[in-house]
Amino acid sequence: MKTVIKDTAYIPMDASAPRVSRGDIVIESGRILKAGGTYQPAQSDRVIDGSRSLALPGLVNAHTHIAMSLLRNCADDLDLFTWLQDHIWPREAKLTEEDIRSGSLLALAELIRSGVTTFADMYFYQEPTIESVLASGISAHIGATLMGGKEETDKRMKDHEALISSWHNAEDGRIRVDIAPHAVYTCSEYTLKAAAELADEYRTALHIHLSETRKEQQDSLQTHGMTPLGYLHSLGFFKAHCYAAHGVYLSEEDISLCRELQIPVVHNPTSNLKLANGTAPVAEFLRKGLTVALGTDGASSNNNLNMIEEMHIASLIHKGAAEDPTVLPAYDVLYMATMGGAEALGRADEIGSIEPGKRADIILFDIDSPHLVPLNNPVSAVVYSAQSSDIHTVISSGEVIMENRNILTLDEEKILADARVSADRLAPVT
Amino acid sequence: MKTVIKDTAYIPMDASAPRVSRGDIVIESGRILKAGGTYQPAQSDRVIDGSRSLALPGLVNAHTHIAMSLLRNCADDLDLFTWLQDHIWPREAKLTEEDIRSGSLLALAELIRSGVTTFADMYFYQEPTIESVLASGISAHIGATLMGGKEETDKRMKDHEALISSWHNAEDGRIRVDIAPHAVYTCSEYTLKAAAELADEYRTALHIHLSETRKEQQDSLQTHGMTPLGYLHSLGFFKAHCYAAHGVYLSEEDISLCRELQIPVVHNPTSNLKLANGTAPVAEFLRKGLTVALGTDGASSNNNLNMIEEMHIASLIHKGAAEDPTVLPAYDVLYMATMGGAEALGRADEIGSIEPGKRADIILFDIDSPHLVPLNNPVSAVVYSAQSSDIHTVISSGEVIMENRNILTLDEEKILADARVSADRLAPVT
Repeated sequence: MKTVIKDTAYIPMDASAPRVSRGDIVIESGRILKAGGTYQPAQSDRVIDGSRSLALPGLVNAHTHIAMSLLRNCADDLDLFTWLQDHIWPREAKLTEEDIRSGSLLALAELIRSGVTTFADMYFYQEPTIESVLASGISAHIGATLMGGKEETDKRMKDHEALISSWHNAEDGRIRVDIAPHAVYTCSEYTLKAAAELADEYRTALHIHLSETRKEQQDSLQTHGMTPLGYLHSLGFFKAHCYAAHGVYLSEEDISLCRELQIPVVHNPTSNLKLANGTAPVAEFLRKGLTVALGTDGASSNNNLNMIEEMHIASLIHKGAAEDPTVLPAYDVLYMATMGGAEALGRADEIGSIEPGKRADIILFDIDSPHLVPLNNPVSAVVYSAQSSDIHTVISSGEVIMENRNILTLDEEKILADARVSADRLAPVT
Repeated sequence: MKTVIKDTAYIPMDASAPRVSRGDIVIESGRILKAGGTYQPAQSDRVIDGSRSLALPGLVNAHTHIAMSLLRNCADDLDLFTWLQDHIWPREAKLTEEDIRSGSLLALAELIRSGVTTFADMYFYQEPTIESVLASGISAHIGATLMGGKEETDKRMKDHEALISSWHNAEDGRIRVDIAPHAVYTCSEYTLKAAAELADEYRTALHIHLSETRKEQQDSLQTHGMTPLGYLHSLGFFKAHCYAAHGVYLSEEDISLCRELQIPVVHNPTSNLKLANGTAPVAEFLRKGLTVALGTDGASSNNNLNMIEEMHIASLIHKGAAEDPTVLPAYDVLYMATMGGAEALGRADEIGSIEPGKRADIILFDIDSPHLVPLNNPVSAVVYSAQSSDIHTVISSGEVIMENRNILTLDEEKILADARVSADRLAPVT
């Protein structure tokens, strides 16, 4: 049995020139069999009318902390220290595995509604998150988080090896376990080296926060006499593929080194602005040939996981900063949210575009809304005009997981109720 | 007969301290009769269940060009001159009254869906726009546009006097005609003076583009030896109340003069970023006591009329620019989009808050979506997490004009079809 999206406009995001195509998209066994042209469906095939839709590859949210959705809007407009000390840490100290499950499921519902079919996560208690991802039907890179010194790390390393052997590449590759040392300022040298070795040994990727704040950059220069990137490089950290979140304060030399070592940067514009860390020099990253992906960061610093909004914000701020409206055209931003994410996560051959052989991760936008009329340029429409609520259908690994804006894989009513219970429990007693 | 929103959480935006209230809101004869407490509805009253909603005053979009929605996504990521010369002007040259009608209706559908109940417009052919606004059920300040020299202005002044006598304060004040000289660089001295006199004579307001681009500021300094604001002041322009769009390049002295002359600034963050004009120093405006409103500008430079998105973007960029996360907290941004707009348009006593005696312009958000759970802080939720599609009900001047996300006053299907016809006709022959 095949699934056929009939007569749809689609943006393939493949290696050919930027374009919008029209035709049938045929899906079989979780993969794209054919994109474009006309296909005559068999009686047993499932046919989705695409004639009033615009199809895109599923979006890749390349840096987030999904269970932090429980902390959404609990504390805003505060300086970093007050925010962490008085609001985030006291709640995180109370987190149980069940909270992680309710927070993960809440975030997964939001991710699906925002067209995300693959995301890279970094947080505590990986198992309930993995189980939630599997239930949702989408794909994830789960960060096996490390921080602190030797004792803490040795304990966690054992858990992480078990996690890798149970889950890495599970479910036809829908789950990958990446090694996620938190940052240079929260990990000892021992921990950073252990992380690199673990990733190398299991041939998985590294996921780290890098040069997010001015303080991180300055402290590293003072402590190590090197930038955070330079310091990691000096430790032989980059044995395995590594994607780095933020990169707001990467120096000129850092950017060249990222290019040389093929380290992609995950841009998180909302979080960087909201926490007042500034704006990563993304136009320069692209000019220098770096791979750039897009992420929402966690819902506590955003305060949502809306990749459509993230594209819009990314598209605007760099034009303003450069005083040049031609900087970061819409297609480049859409690339960051699709193929850029695929490349960053080391899966360019598998996700990020609508091409035969790729995983069938496809999202459909309803184009019959006033804010998308006239459509004129569909790439501009998605980046500058759309809302995530325009997405009516999400197909992940060939399965229809959202149809007519109803998520088929999750019980949203129960998820909202459970998340409210967890959030209430986490709130400080006042 | 009264309309009662029963048991709703609401953000009053009144003069008391920022707060979220809960209770019944009672509407009669287009005005708010009572907000808060419990009201026992009569059998003849219309009751709206507000228990799963969050109510806000209708939003004020204080600077836009609604019929430009026909030019949405027709040309992006271009330098200003190419954009205007090759794409915008050739289309505008073909605009007919019927196009203005179809573009206005298209924009009105989008404005209502984004929670806007009052907007300030500036464009060509005011009558079809006014007729469209009246059909939609919302309120508008219609710009009677002036530009060019004496001959052009004398002709337009006659039309505008007729427009004022037909429409100014029509329909219980739902329509106001404001005088809108385009900008200092497009209007002769004669035209600017004539505009000021006309506004003064008819006791209406002035609406002008001011200090939008670096070039405007520099050219004025070169030509007049004064900033655009200083030049206008030297002409005796500010006889009537004037609200100024953009203000990106206002000097320190300009800002003080705005304070002195009580000139509100309408902030258009998306348009300013997209056209690479930069970011208006809004935090400084507020520190110095200026009134700041919010606008989307036209859909050709945005590319939507989404005030929820505009709030979100405004809330983020100033924190990033100041490297201070406490700058422009969520409530200040919500104020800009409600009471700030009301003050800018000279209607602080009539719209912008949920208070007895005010016009019953009220919008209801659905709070049962994953991205609004947990709700925690409703002000943060609206500014940082919400989408315009969360708005399910819009009440304007006491009438329910959108219910369950269905606009009751407009035929959206016909509007989308007509707008597509107009847009196709305007597109250059290739």
